[in-house]
Amino acid sequence: MSVGRAAGPGGAPREADLRLEYKRVRAATVALCAGLVPEDMVAQSMDDCSPTKWHLAHTTWFFETFVLRAAAPGHVPFHPAFEVLFNSYYEAVGPFFPRPRRGVLTRPSVEEVMAYRARVDAAMDALLGAGVDAEVRARVVLGLHHEEQHQELILMDVKHLFAQSPLRPALRAAAAAASEGPAPPLGWCAGPTGVQAIGHEGAGFAFDNEGPRHRVFLVPFEIGSRCVTNGEYAEFIADGGYRRAELWLSDGWATVRRAGLAAPLYWETVDGAWWEMTLGGMRRLDPHAPVVHVSHYEADAYARWAGARLPTEAEWEVVAAGVEVAGNFVESGRLHPGAAPAGAGPQQLFGDVWEWTASAYSPYPGYRPAAGALGEYNGKFMSAQMVLRGGACVSPAAHVRATYRNFFPAGARWPFAGIRLARDR
Amino acid sequence: MSVGRAAGPGGAPREADLRLEYKRVRAATVALCAGLVPEDMVAQSMDDCSPTKWHLAHTTWFFETFVLRAAAPGHVPFHPAFEVLFNSYYEAVGPFFPRPRRGVLTRPSVEEVMAYRARVDAAMDALLGAGVDAEVRARVVLGLHHEEQHQELILMDVKHLFAQSPLRPALRAAAAAASEGPAPPLGWCAGPTGVQAIGHEGAGFAFDNEGPRHRVFLVPFEIGSRCVTNGEYAEFIADGGYRRAELWLSDGWATVRRAGLAAPLYWETVDGAWWEMTLGGMRRLDPHAPVVHVSHYEADAYARWAGARLPTEAEWEVVAAGVEVAGNFVESGRLHPGAAPAGAGPQQLFGDVWEWTASAYSPYPGYRPAAGALGEYNGKFMSAQMVLRGGACVSPAAHVRATYRNFFPAGARWPFAGIRLARDR
Amino acid sequence: MSVGRAAGPGGAPREADLRLEYKRVRAATVALCAGLVPEDMVAQSMDDCSPTKWHLAHTTWFFETFVLRAAAPGHVPFHPAFEVLFNSYYEAVGPFFPRPRRGVLTRPSVEEVMAYRARVDAAMDALLGAGVDAEVRARVVLGLHHEEQHQELILMDVKHLFAQSPLRPALRAAAAAASEGPAPPLGWCAGPTGVQAIGHEGAGFAFDNEGPRHRVFLVPFEIGSRCVTNGEYAEFIADGGYRRAELWLSDGWATVRRAGLAAPLYWETVDGAWWEMTLGGMRRLDPHAPVVHVSHYEADAYARWAGARLPTEAEWEVVAAGVEVAGNFVESGRLHPGAAPAGAGPQQLFGDVWEWTASAYSPYPGYRPAAGALGEYNGKFMSAQMVLRGGACVSPAAHVRATYRNFFPAGARWPFAGIRLARDR
Amino acid sequence: MSVGRAAGPGGAPREADLRLEYKRVRAATVALCAGLVPEDMVAQSMDDCSPTKWHLAHTTWFFETFVLRAAAPGHVPFHPAFEVLFNSYYEAVGPFFPRPRRGVLTRPSVEEVMAYRARVDAAMDALLGAGVDAEVRARVVLGLHHEEQHQELILMDVKHLFAQSPLRPALRAAAAAASEGPAPPLGWCAGPTGVQAIGHEGAGFAFDNEGPRHRVFLVPFEIGSRCVTNGEYAEFIADGGYRRAELWLSDGWATVRRAGLAAPLYWETVDGAWWEMTLGGMRRLDPHAPVVHVSHYEADAYARWAGARLPTEAEWEVVAAGVEVAGNFVESGRLHPGAAPAGAGPQQLFGDVWEWTASAYSPYPGYRPAAGALGEYNGKFMSAQMVLRGGACVSPAAHVRATYRNFFPAGARWPFAGIRLARDR
Repeated sequence: MSVGRAAGPGGAPREADLRLEYKRVRAATVALCAGLVPEDMVAQSMDDCSPTKWHLAHTTWFFETFVLRAAAPGHVPFHPAFEVLFNSYYEAVGPFFPRPRRGVLTRPSVEEVMAYRARVDAAMDALLGAGVDAEVRARVVLGLHHEEQHQELILMDVKHLFAQSPLRPALRAAAAAASEGPAPPLGWCAGPTGVQAIGHEGAGFAFDNEGPRHRVFLVPFEIGSRCVTNGEYAEFIADGGYRRAELWLSDGWATVRRAGLAAPLYWETVDGAWWEMTLGGMRRLDPHAPVVHVSHYEADAYARWAGARLPTEAEWEVVAAGVEVAGNFVESGRLHPGAAPAGAGPQQLFGDVWEWTASAYSPYPGYRPAAGALGEYNGKFMSAQMVLRGGACVSPAAHVRATYRNFFPAGARWPFAGIRLARDR
Repeated sequence: MSVGRAAGPGGAPREADLRLEYKRVRAATVALCAGLVPEDMVAQSMDDCSPTKWHLAHTTWFFETFVLRAAAPGHVPFHPAFEVLFNSYYEAVGPFFPRPRRGVLTRPSVEEVMAYRARVDAAMDALLGAGVDAEVRARVVLGLHHEEQHQELILMDVKHLFAQSPLRPALRAAAAAASEGPAPPLGWCAGPTGVQAIGHEGAGFAFDNEGPRHRVFLVPFEIGSRCVTNGEYAEFIADGGYRRAELWLSDGWATVRRAGLAAPLYWETVDGAWWEMTLGGMRRLDPHAPVVHVSHYEADAYARWAGARLPTEAEWEVVAAGVEVAGNFVESGRLHPGAAPAGAGPQQLFGDVWEWTASAYSPYPGYRPAAGALGEYNGKFMSAQMVLRGGACVSPAAHVRATYRNFFPAGARWPFAGIRLARDR
Repeated sequence: MSVGRAAGPGGAPREADLRLEYKRVRAATVALCAGLVPEDMVAQSMDDCSPTKWHLAHTTWFFETFVLRAAAPGHVPFHPAFEVLFNSYYEAVGPFFPRPRRGVLTRPSVEEVMAYRARVDAAMDALLGAGVDAEVRARVVLGLHHEEQHQELILMDVKHLFAQSPLRPALRAAAAAASEGPAPPLGWCAGPTGVQAIGHEGAGFAFDNEGPRHRVFLVPFEIGSRCVTNGEYAEFIADGGYRRAELWLSDGWATVRRAGLAAPLYWETVDGAWWEMTLGGMRRLDPHAPVVHVSHYEADAYARWAGARLPTEAEWEVVAAGVEVAGNFVESGRLHPGAAPAGAGPQQLFGDVWEWTASAYSPYPGYRPAAGALGEYNGKFMSAQMVLRGGACVSPAAHVRATYRNFFPAGARWPFAGIRLARDR
Repeated sequence: MSVGRAAGPGGAPREADLRLEYKRVRAATVALCAGLVPEDMVAQSMDDCSPTKWHLAHTTWFFETFVLRAAAPGHVPFHPAFEVLFNSYYEAVGPFFPRPRRGVLTRPSVEEVMAYRARVDAAMDALLGAGVDAEVRARVVLGLHHEEQHQELILMDVKHLFAQSPLRPALRAAAAAASEGPAPPLGWCAGPTGVQAIGHEGAGFAFDNEGPRHRVFLVPFEIGSRCVTNGEYAEFIADGGYRRAELWLSDGWATVRRAGLAAPLYWETVDGAWWEMTLGGMRRLDPHAPVVHVSHYEADAYARWAGARLPTEAEWEVVAAGVEVAGNFVESGRLHPGAAPAGAGPQQLFGDVWEWTASAYSPYPGYRPAAGALGEYNGKFMSAQMVLRGGACVSPAAHVRATYRNFFPAGARWPFAGIRLARDR
């Protein structure tokens, strides 16, 4: 369940001074944890989530395993057991501790993990100060993008954890304040058609799954001018959306029935009104903000109810290709989606919520994963997952770009994922 | 899990005399059951399978529900409970009996189901004799294609059932005789590239999911000249194929580990040699015949091991578009794949085994399901399934065509599915 | 889940002419199946049930394995695979086919199983005609008691199977007719106290778990004069019995919540009135007949609600010791419990319904299972089961006696089990 | 899974000065946690275990709910949500948080829980200083015995948690040192027979399930002179104990097969030698110490292999009745069983390991649970559990007595439970 993204408008900064960039990204991870006590950092609220402590250690393991072991002669591993404990899924590296059991690893403690980070950071600083070759440089850059993915996962997982507690704790009291104004009415924006090219090419970092750049053929379509709002989604619910089988994919309907779904993941009714759990604690539902924490099934059912459909990832990308990567990212501190601004053309393509597409996550024509363990980064997950695009309010800004392919199983609801509509023209 | 296909070279015969065609198809279903005792026809060996008796009744229910109730005024349903008992998954029609429990429905007996068939057949004969309008005609044609899908399911499900028994019974003693000669060496055939059109268009029956016809952009590729053989697949096994994580998609590897997979579904070792369960009982493995009963995961892993990949459904279709629909279908009575013939160009595209593609089952651009219950036929399954192409040795010949899109979850192994390789050029 | 019982008033008839008795018991098994079609005889409606066909074959396997193989030199097994297919749980005999999968064994067919029975019966007849020694004689007698247990299981399992079908078929149209009169009011009968002896001793057949006879110490108690009726149980339901945690054992309450229990297994409401599924099809609930198809948890909760408790098996046995073994057994053809007769002393101790006791199924002091495979008959089930006493309307009369210990897990509801109350004096 | 026990040699100290005793017991709980970091105190390693933090809070909740709310007018609950969060299973008090999810409750933090303890302790101190009536006094005494049960559970649960980690951390470096000398040879001690009395009576605390005292009839038996040792159990393993179906109860054998059991819970082989996880970390197996962390199934199978059986709880109690309650309890700081001393008569009856009996956990004749929520303490668990006797190396000495009835499901292996043999005389 590798989330993923990269170097904003070009990735140039990372290339400019990798040593500084390393410090910046690593510090940002730790800064996210402000407000957590050690108890919060060890718990795992479901199989798909990991403890914060594990994220802090695993991202460190990544640099120790793929950089220091390979490029820092004489590096002594911090602890012999960490190779297994903090390997996520790299079969080529060796065995790994079962993911659903990460929550029972109370040792190493948070303090020891922070010592592990400090030790690896010192070794990395020395290595980068001494200069590294292009292969090592590439691995460090990959490690930083990897760390940014885990920054987002930390926020997703903490939110899920806190939502289990009847106390509904807040990570940041100031997060998820009410949106400033009403969302503009939903409009439709035509996209380019015929033979178009998508995928990453050229300088700047991208994950291997974003390439090769290749041509596709698009029939005429248009895309919604903003994301679907909470208010619109509440109408779908009020219209019996969760009780009408004809709106749902068969697997989605089975999920609705089995789990008794009736609203997005974190919605609750309190005295007849909708509230939602946020990283700022319980908030009254803002009808103007984008709906978030819906599955692909819910996004698809909503679209069908609305007489539309979800965009394919190619449609999304050709529309987004010319748009500046700017929006409500993690740096805003909001940690929750907000109402779309008014404006010409599609808004909110970047930030706020990941947008479910109609595309299954498949290799692009000519795709080849890297050799060795790092080849396991993306390719082996190309099965039974759907592509999401655009980044969210918990994504680092520099991590997002138009070609970025995020992916999750169709039933996942804990990502910050929402809905953009599309339709044939 | 709707399988699907249609009217051979044009579908013309069905249009010509629908009353005769109705009799032909319905009789073919019953003929398949020769050799089964009533006990065989009631059992259900896993959730995805259905009892033969259920298939016999459900196909009849289809005509009663969608044709007779709609178009035969005064038609008295055979039994009031059958509407629920033999509805498969049509939510719009009403409730249905849970699929995994079909095996406990010992009543109605086989004899009563045959009486149900006779009663509906008589009413259909009268209706068709009196003449029907285009809408009803279309429903009857759909019903016949639907029945052919269940003919194939009957054979798949009986094979699975018989394989559970230590007695390993044969449906037909003569089935699955050894192939006549060696398979020709594997060659590679280049396909058309650039902007190409795929999908059904024009006269002749097709399921709704085969259209609309639309353009796609294909990069240069070539396709294997025949299906992968048992002998080749055995080399993959001998080379540790089921023990090497790097060859597998992550979900596939999890399946291999959880279920302890080490060979295709029906393979067994007897005194050190490979045997396989067939509809003719246990047979020594024929190294020249195509491997069959592999999952998408196994097909994908094999392809990776072989330095190749699976074709996309578009690649498969543009290659198959000009090829005559001929091959080892159910009419041969073989009920098992056989060695490919020698010849120029790709062989075995039709018949023998369904060929897993690299394509997730998604709607074509502009796809719209039909209104009402029949709209549930295909569209709602477009999630977490992979497309297969070409028909198999248990498919009726008239049911297969180049645009036909069969689909199953990536882990399914009880379909007669095998492997065709592709690679970039 | 071996049910069990034996030789009625002394077991003398069986000893008198074993050859005749063999024929009688074996014929009774087949006679029970009148009204079943082959489809009914192959299906398995839950893991704890077995197909009728399997019961018919397994009881035959018992004689072939434990008598003919041991005592009939030159006996050729009917089919080499049957040793595995029809072994229930005798580890010492060898592997056995997994119980929950018995429903997929469509072969051998019913016809073949009847041929198997005929062949074994012929061999047994020859053997018994020639005379057998005491050890063989004991095995034959055990086999007949074993067969009687399976006669009861056939009726339990067919009832469960038919209850799954929306058609609610009847095994016998005449079964379960309404009771003749009202049940007498519930009274209380004091039992013998102080040091008492229980358990089997002396001539006449008993299962090994019924002995050795031994002394127990009983404090003063009294026992209900008849079984709890449907009408009384309906009051418990109406009083919120299934919604009041304080009435239930912890495991029982968990079951109520998890499975949503709200009434005995086969009760249904039709237009506001209680009906129940019987072997005669759906019947309006008879308030005077004993409640049946309740679990130990339900029996225990009812008793607590009624201010009473369940009797221990020792209490039950010392009360029953002097009572004639007579009542509503399978020979009445009723196949359903009926209202208790009026009379002095406890009524309905034998027949109608098995009576849950407060006793866990444990070995009696000095208990030793037989050596070899037959030692697996009873002893290995002495864990997590509760004892039931007295026989039911589906038990053969000659099979029941005061010392008989039947046993099932506390949650089992498909046995014909009901409730007798007890209380301290 | 209420464990339970009480006031050592008479319970007099608790009665003498309840205020001091309250402080002593509460402080002992906290002292046990020395060496744990907050991360250790929040994790839950399986459904049957609870986080240390939860134990600390739940025992406090007990006093707040059953004493302060009832007897301290004006007491303001520490936090309104704690009533639900820290209720274990008292249905009469209200809803409770699901047990298997306790590990996701990261808030309140350990620090907050300690503040909760301090606040309740201050209120209790004031209440006890002011004097309380007999009913309140009885509840406080019960609360202290309850707290002692959770002291033992903390150690059981921490051990299980630490055993999940590849780091195998130690709670106390000094715990589980090697035994001092060889265990004496196993002898046999005859017990009293005929009519005997068991159960609690008279002054001194006991749980309700220990009474009423009543008479039982015992046939001649003798009991092992000490517990079964690791060395003896290793012989059972070496003799194929885990591969021989005939030694096992049916449910036990199913568990062995399903879970692949081959040794007690915490045994591991390292370079061909047996080691075991202890609260002092990994230790080489001491052949003289009692085997511990076996299930009832394992104890029963071992006994059968040894030609013996387990004692009933009545047999155990009449033997233990005259023996001083002394042994290896938690106060020794060893936290692991040690070799039995030599001596006349049965050794190790108290301390070291809980001893599985052959008795299912049932109510004694005349047993009545208390009214109200406290009536849920013991009685509702009298189903599908087995009785254990004698206390263990993690039990407080003052908590154990001869009439004490501990109970766990037959498959439980995380209690400190071992084996004492018995046999008929």
